[in-house]
Amino acid sequence: MLTSLSLIVLALTIIFNTTHPLSASAGFAILGGAITWELVSAFKECFVKANLTGRDLAKVDKPKIPESMGVICATVYLICLFLFIPFPFMEWFTGKGIISRSEEFHVPTFPHHKLGEFLSAMLSLQSMTFLGFADDIFDIRWRYKLLLPAIASIPILMVYYVNFGVTHIVVPIPLRFVFGKIMDLGFLYYIYMGMIAIFCTNSINILAGINGVEIGQSLIIACSIAINDLLFLNGADPAVEAHLFSLYFILPFIGVSFGLLFHNWYPSRVFVGDTYCYFAGMTFAVVGILAHFSKTMLLFFIPQVFNFIYSCPQLFRLIDCPRHRLPRFNPSTLKLEYSRVKIQKPLKPLTLLVLKVFMLFGLAEINEVGENNLEINNFTLLNLLLLRFGPLREQTLAIFVMIVQILASCIAFTIRYRLTIKTVLL
Amino acid sequence: MLTSLSLIVLALTIIFNTTHPLSASAGFAILGGAITWELVSAFKECFVKANLTGRDLAKVDKPKIPESMGVICATVYLICLFLFIPFPFMEWFTGKGIISRSEEFHVPTFPHHKLGEFLSAMLSLQSMTFLGFADDIFDIRWRYKLLLPAIASIPILMVYYVNFGVTHIVVPIPLRFVFGKIMDLGFLYYIYMGMIAIFCTNSINILAGINGVEIGQSLIIACSIAINDLLFLNGADPAVEAHLFSLYFILPFIGVSFGLLFHNWYPSRVFVGDTYCYFAGMTFAVVGILAHFSKTMLLFFIPQVFNFIYSCPQLFRLIDCPRHRLPRFNPSTLKLEYSRVKIQKPLKPLTLLVLKVFMLFGLAEINEVGENNLEINNFTLLNLLLLRFGPLREQTLAIFVMIVQILASCIAFTIRYRLTIKTVLL
Repeated sequence: MLTSLSLIVLALTIIFNTTHPLSASAGFAILGGAITWELVSAFKECFVKANLTGRDLAKVDKPKIPESMGVICATVYLICLFLFIPFPFMEWFTGKGIISRSEEFHVPTFPHHKLGEFLSAMLSLQSMTFLGFADDIFDIRWRYKLLLPAIASIPILMVYYVNFGVTHIVVPIPLRFVFGKIMDLGFLYYIYMGMIAIFCTNSINILAGINGVEIGQSLIIACSIAINDLLFLNGADPAVEAHLFSLYFILPFIGVSFGLLFHNWYPSRVFVGDTYCYFAGMTFAVVGILAHFSKTMLLFFIPQVFNFIYSCPQLFRLIDCPRHRLPRFNPSTLKLEYSRVKIQKPLKPLTLLVLKVFMLFGLAEINEVGENNLEINNFTLLNLLLLRFGPLREQTLAIFVMIVQILASCIAFTIRYRLTIKTVLL
Repeated sequence: MLTSLSLIVLALTIIFNTTHPLSASAGFAILGGAITWELVSAFKECFVKANLTGRDLAKVDKPKIPESMGVICATVYLICLFLFIPFPFMEWFTGKGIISRSEEFHVPTFPHHKLGEFLSAMLSLQSMTFLGFADDIFDIRWRYKLLLPAIASIPILMVYYVNFGVTHIVVPIPLRFVFGKIMDLGFLYYIYMGMIAIFCTNSINILAGINGVEIGQSLIIACSIAINDLLFLNGADPAVEAHLFSLYFILPFIGVSFGLLFHNWYPSRVFVGDTYCYFAGMTFAVVGILAHFSKTMLLFFIPQVFNFIYSCPQLFRLIDCPRHRLPRFNPSTLKLEYSRVKIQKPLKPLTLLVLKVFMLFGLAEINEVGENNLEINNFTLLNLLLLRFGPLREQTLAIFVMIVQILASCIAFTIRYRLTIKTVLL
């Protein structure tokens, strides 16, 4: 209580003495974090009363704890951003900049297009938070989960079109002999951006299920994005403004995520729910798209991309996909073990091929069960880590995932700054 | 099913052959209505499963029916608007208008400020829908219900500031001897607009509780706004664009509300929840503010203003305020009667004064109960109608409220177009 109060005082001091929007943003990050921390404690009972609870299956007594608390975190974040919006435009409110509402061209007019970026980003973000919360309550079907993020990204795509309209990409050097140096994707680029939104929101949601892992991976991605943004701030680059925009969204995100992580780290007192996963994913999609580094950002998603591709045989039903593919808790060792799924022989040729390839790379372990059945590990990153490193305690597994995520970010920075030419377009 | 399918086909035909954004908007109104109608049926079971239900106390068997179905209606509305946004800017996408992203002033640039209006309006609207849904699930405290609409209106107030910045009002003729012809409210005007948002969202929520009354009143207000907008479209007035903007938001609102009303009219198969009330109220606040007719719009809210002022003695605890002040259902007559509250003697002087004034205007009926207690009617418009007209059946009472609302709109139009000077500023 005392800690959070002093944090709030610190944050307000920073905000009220701000000289650059970036310091206000940092202030809101601290403010959001402290308030999230307090509110999550305060609202726990409300969530239990409203029947928003889930069982933590990886504990001996399987306690019932509040679910979907990500909605608190997302709401605090959105309120922080609502209050932050005026800061980047402060000169226009304090009288330094003159707002011309007429058509006189010699007066510098208000940067409506910048405000549009903020508003569209928040609109898309809020839509996804809303969808996530609805998913927690109603268990929305898969087809809607794929369709709705695409609709939610319409505002940012429109603003992207009218503000930038850049649809060509710089081709990485090894591929230039096929595609040339620059390739214009045209309309396909918008499809690509819509798919980024769908991918980001859902990919965090499927690398989930043990204490702290949703927030852990999100925080590392967010910090990687922030570092990448900071690398651009020194230059007199035209990209500075785009990366400032990204920081304005990412810093408060890091703040509120930390606030929630304190309650969600092992042993969890609250679950974050799909709400948090969607909210986090859309934050990344929005800054990736509007600050034009969606391709760099995808590099930060290597573990999620891997987890998605690795899951595909099950997602597309080549192999049975049980409702939950979480690691199995062994109460006698207090450790998590990889979970298995049974499949019947004979196998379809395609299934056989996939299994052979996975075996080759050490991604699958197959056991015969009786005469007609095989048992294989569920194809998720969490199970793979347990398969490779043996049974682990829950918090150790969460840390392993975070290490994987950090390694991915290192690879991403290497690829980004060594292997391709340095350009703002990438 | 067949009806809604043919409506959907009709709507899509209109949308794809649109020549003016207004016809697209009408198309989306029909589309939204038909889809709401279908989805509310389809999702009823989901809501029951998610424990979102309420008892209809004004029926003999007090059936348990799905609650908060307004969230479907609001979601369909928001999706319609997401898809509608590009239409008013179509010329910029089809190549007729050239988007200048450079600083060359001779090329007409994209109307970013108009897009900003749309985005901010939707952001505020969606925030309130989210808040309403959260209120249905968590029973949010009063102080948040007052604070959050103010925060949710920050985006529209900012856009109002940078796009219009008009803070002076034309004083009605009878008051000019005090205030002069035009009065500049300055910063107070923004406070006033924030309060409009708080008032609109909450006032519909407190004139609620019988089958169909929430949607009934909202539809009549919405139609009044639409008529008022249409009156402006003929002129070459600068207000044309503002009233077009209003229509773009109001037409789909009318559509989705009708779609929901079919399920919510007596006897209700679903309840609309706080979600609908907040959503409806914020729609009105948003168009009132951004199309600059907030004062005319308040005239359409006469019954709600009356209901609020009439409720004040109870809201501010001069007189006990029970959790629910709904009319009481009498199972023997199948009619609703006004509900009463007991108060203890002696009365505070202020309470006595209020009661005397209310008695004078026939707004209160007081009965002695024993020696130390009084019994009075609960101070709501619904109870007042029952007090004046005797016990009524539920659907009759709902129709009475709608008649009151229509009379209020007639008065509003009279005041607006006869008693004050005609100016776009009012």
